[in-house]
Amino acid sequence: MHPVLVGGEWRPADAAGEFTAHDPTTGKPLDERYPVSSWSDCEAALTAASDAAEKLDGCSPDAIAAFLESYADRLEGAGEELAEIASRETGLPVRPRLLEVELPRTTGQLRQAAAATRSGEWRQPVHDEPLGLHTGFGPLGPVMVFGPNNFPFAFNAISGGDFAAAIAAGNPVIAKAHPDHPGVSRRMAELAAAAVTDAGLPPATVQMLYGMGPEDGLRMVGDRRLATISFTGSRASGMRLKAAAESAGVLAYLEMSSVNPVFFLPGALAEKGPDLAQELAGSCLLGSGQFCTCPNLCVLVAGAECDAWLSDVARTMSDREPTVLLSSGTLSTLETTVKGLVDAGAAIVTGGAKADRPGYYFQNTLLQVSGADFLESPVALQSEAFGPTTLAVVAADAAEAVAVAREIEGSLTACVYSAADGADDDLCQQLMGVLRRKAGRLLNDKMPTGVAVSPAMNHGGPFPATGHPGFTAVGLPVSMRRFAKLDCYDAVRPHRLPGWLQNE
Amino acid sequence: MHPVLVGGEWRPADAAGEFTAHDPTTGKPLDERYPVSSWSDCEAALTAASDAAEKLDGCSPDAIAAFLESYADRLEGAGEELAEIASRETGLPVRPRLLEVELPRTTGQLRQAAAATRSGEWRQPVHDEPLGLHTGFGPLGPVMVFGPNNFPFAFNAISGGDFAAAIAAGNPVIAKAHPDHPGVSRRMAELAAAAVTDAGLPPATVQMLYGMGPEDGLRMVGDRRLATISFTGSRASGMRLKAAAESAGVLAYLEMSSVNPVFFLPGALAEKGPDLAQELAGSCLLGSGQFCTCPNLCVLVAGAECDAWLSDVARTMSDREPTVLLSSGTLSTLETTVKGLVDAGAAIVTGGAKADRPGYYFQNTLLQVSGADFLESPVALQSEAFGPTTLAVVAADAAEAVAVAREIEGSLTACVYSAADGADDDLCQQLMGVLRRKAGRLLNDKMPTGVAVSPAMNHGGPFPATGHPGFTAVGLPVSMRRFAKLDCYDAVRPHRLPGWLQNE
Repeated sequence: MHPVLVGGEWRPADAAGEFTAHDPTTGKPLDERYPVSSWSDCEAALTAASDAAEKLDGCSPDAIAAFLESYADRLEGAGEELAEIASRETGLPVRPRLLEVELPRTTGQLRQAAAATRSGEWRQPVHDEPLGLHTGFGPLGPVMVFGPNNFPFAFNAISGGDFAAAIAAGNPVIAKAHPDHPGVSRRMAELAAAAVTDAGLPPATVQMLYGMGPEDGLRMVGDRRLATISFTGSRASGMRLKAAAESAGVLAYLEMSSVNPVFFLPGALAEKGPDLAQELAGSCLLGSGQFCTCPNLCVLVAGAECDAWLSDVARTMSDREPTVLLSSGTLSTLETTVKGLVDAGAAIVTGGAKADRPGYYFQNTLLQVSGADFLESPVALQSEAFGPTTLAVVAADAAEAVAVAREIEGSLTACVYSAADGADDDLCQQLMGVLRRKAGRLLNDKMPTGVAVSPAMNHGGPFPATGHPGFTAVGLPVSMRRFAKLDCYDAVRPHRLPGWLQNE
Repeated sequence: MHPVLVGGEWRPADAAGEFTAHDPTTGKPLDERYPVSSWSDCEAALTAASDAAEKLDGCSPDAIAAFLESYADRLEGAGEELAEIASRETGLPVRPRLLEVELPRTTGQLRQAAAATRSGEWRQPVHDEPLGLHTGFGPLGPVMVFGPNNFPFAFNAISGGDFAAAIAAGNPVIAKAHPDHPGVSRRMAELAAAAVTDAGLPPATVQMLYGMGPEDGLRMVGDRRLATISFTGSRASGMRLKAAAESAGVLAYLEMSSVNPVFFLPGALAEKGPDLAQELAGSCLLGSGQFCTCPNLCVLVAGAECDAWLSDVARTMSDREPTVLLSSGTLSTLETTVKGLVDAGAAIVTGGAKADRPGYYFQNTLLQVSGADFLESPVALQSEAFGPTTLAVVAADAAEAVAVAREIEGSLTACVYSAADGADDDLCQQLMGVLRRKAGRLLNDKMPTGVAVSPAMNHGGPFPATGHPGFTAVGLPVSMRRFAKLDCYDAVRPHRLPGWLQNE
């Protein structure tokens, strides 16, 4: 059984149990065995993280940046190996997805985080010389990161955006590896630990556990030696962690679920319906629909145009072969959620069931419901069906489309497609006014599935999409602000101010 | 019985009960009767706030700023009247405190908030033209403000810093008046409502209820029509509201309690002990010790110097007449807390009991405990004794003083007094390294009770001082960030971008 990374050392876990990953294409377990830690491992990691936080406070931005860059280099050096392990555990293709798209994104994030650490812009210093006040952001304290199953590199707890942002802001990380891809997490943690040593950072700057029992997990996130948790995953798990953390005063950044509504207005369908059908189907099926920004809900206004167009979308979806899902849990949750949507009044246009083959496959699925029925059960009909699935809401008229928009829960994104000739402009303006308040990122004429790593990105949004709509999980240096504490120095003798606050 | 301000109108409350304020100098009830609202008032306020939030989104920064400025003018115009009402309800003196210090601070905050709205700097726009991404902060949604009892103007839910910051960021406010000063809140709300009308803002931009039953209160803060609550008060109330809000995904900004440790190092005492004794006593007794930043804990290193100095502090405190406390609740909580400190091992040096006169008076109180005893019961000995009270912790040596610092809970401020000649520098550096992580504002050689309204101020800190150490409740425009949502526009057609994001 593999050891855990605690306090800078790979040491045998105090294991309460064990688990293996599975090959999603066959459903068969893989060979490697990973420990479920008991509390003593959690305790040791918390103590070491607490100690590392204080020591990291004395490390230079250059040392932190050097770690991030060295780690990025090592990930690239081991790219083929990492992609092969990840592919075996997740079913995601080595090329182009893992090696050519996700790995460069991951190393790019780490290098952008290094640059942000060096520049210090994230600290947002503010000086009031006459009053002797000097203020800006500093590290927050130990961060426990729970990565999701859908990005084994770019959102991995040990290598992804949260990891990079937390470290760049000077905080130690305890990574909780996702149980669907422990092998790639293990290999990355080895590279991270080596990079920590080379950069001369405190050994416990990076720690990793593979898992712990549910009770120990909740106890750990509610331990005040943690400053914050950062979680990406299901709403049910997120809400349990949120309650445990927040009741103890530990901050909880959560990215939980999002239906990412896309409104196709009548003029847009008239102008380029066939193209839009391809765009929607493509976005829904990208990565087997397992993106946080997958358009799970689309809204149309009834009309002849609309029926034909939905048939086109359905045909495009059913013509494509189902692709593999990440895990048995993803498959069973998807089955349950689709059944729930049908129970709530949606009709299946195409797909709707497990595909008839071994492994974790679900048919590409389009569901449909009237605007009136949606308005009867807006909560049930917004259950996120995580997979190659979308629900089309057909509103009777423009007013009903606006009423549907008003019922949208907090979402990462919302989009309106409208005619180029201005025919939809009035309705578009109304919808955007409503949707701005519902979503973190508002789009026009573009699918939401691309999430660029840009300082101007917002990968966030109102609850329940995330836990706080003032923060973003993607984009540097802004995503570091989640892991920052406001530090004010009042009449502090000038030579005692931290370097970044000493005025030129 | 006074009406409530809901939906832009003063209307009779649907009252489940009533209450009066009291004259703290006599303990006698005042004449005016105020309603405890039942749920229908809460429901009406929530609905109106939700509607106002959408309408405010369409109002210009100039209109919002005009409201804030007009309100400030009106408060000044009614200054004498307001100060008299507030003084009757709180026992705070009209002059200089209410009329000459707190009122100008309050109108200054409103005017700074107006300037911040106009400048738009708080939005922190970020552009990525090549990717078509434009991002910055926008309004969050309805804010429910719970003001404290200790600043009837500057932190009043209907006029204080949270109110100003929330409105300046474009959010409607539901103010929950503090039951200890409903009269001044009522009069201010009248002025606010008139200013709303004059500025042409949506009528429900400002609403006020005097109170509701505990169950309705928790139901209200957990209502998703609210975006956030902002609370200043006791830890017990704050934690109840936090749980109710956060379990529903409503954000909770809380300022709850803080002991504001002050370390007096040996060299500093040797250099200017008598001055420091006066400074400490003065800071502890300011406003009857009812400031959030009152130094409730001071830490010394044992020695002959130290004993004499504490006697000096005790004498200074006992020589001054007790001043009146805000309410019977403040008095009874203080009695209980001081008893709890004694039970936890502290000895009373001076004071320690209710003063022998009518009204709400408590003796100026100094308690003392050894560093070793403090380290035995660090939590119990950090109970905030809100009033003219401080606990001196006498550490055996420098190492024990550092150990005490490590046990300090999250606090608004922490301070180290050290010798001018550098004799304390090693210990000071160690302490500041520990205390930076514990407090929002770190001071040298200065009492924490002054909280300047400056862009470089931080009135915040780690839990349990507040709910989130990344935000400040004082200082504009930074305090507005609490009430802001990150809004990203992705490929949105340029003419549809909000004005503040349209590139020059």
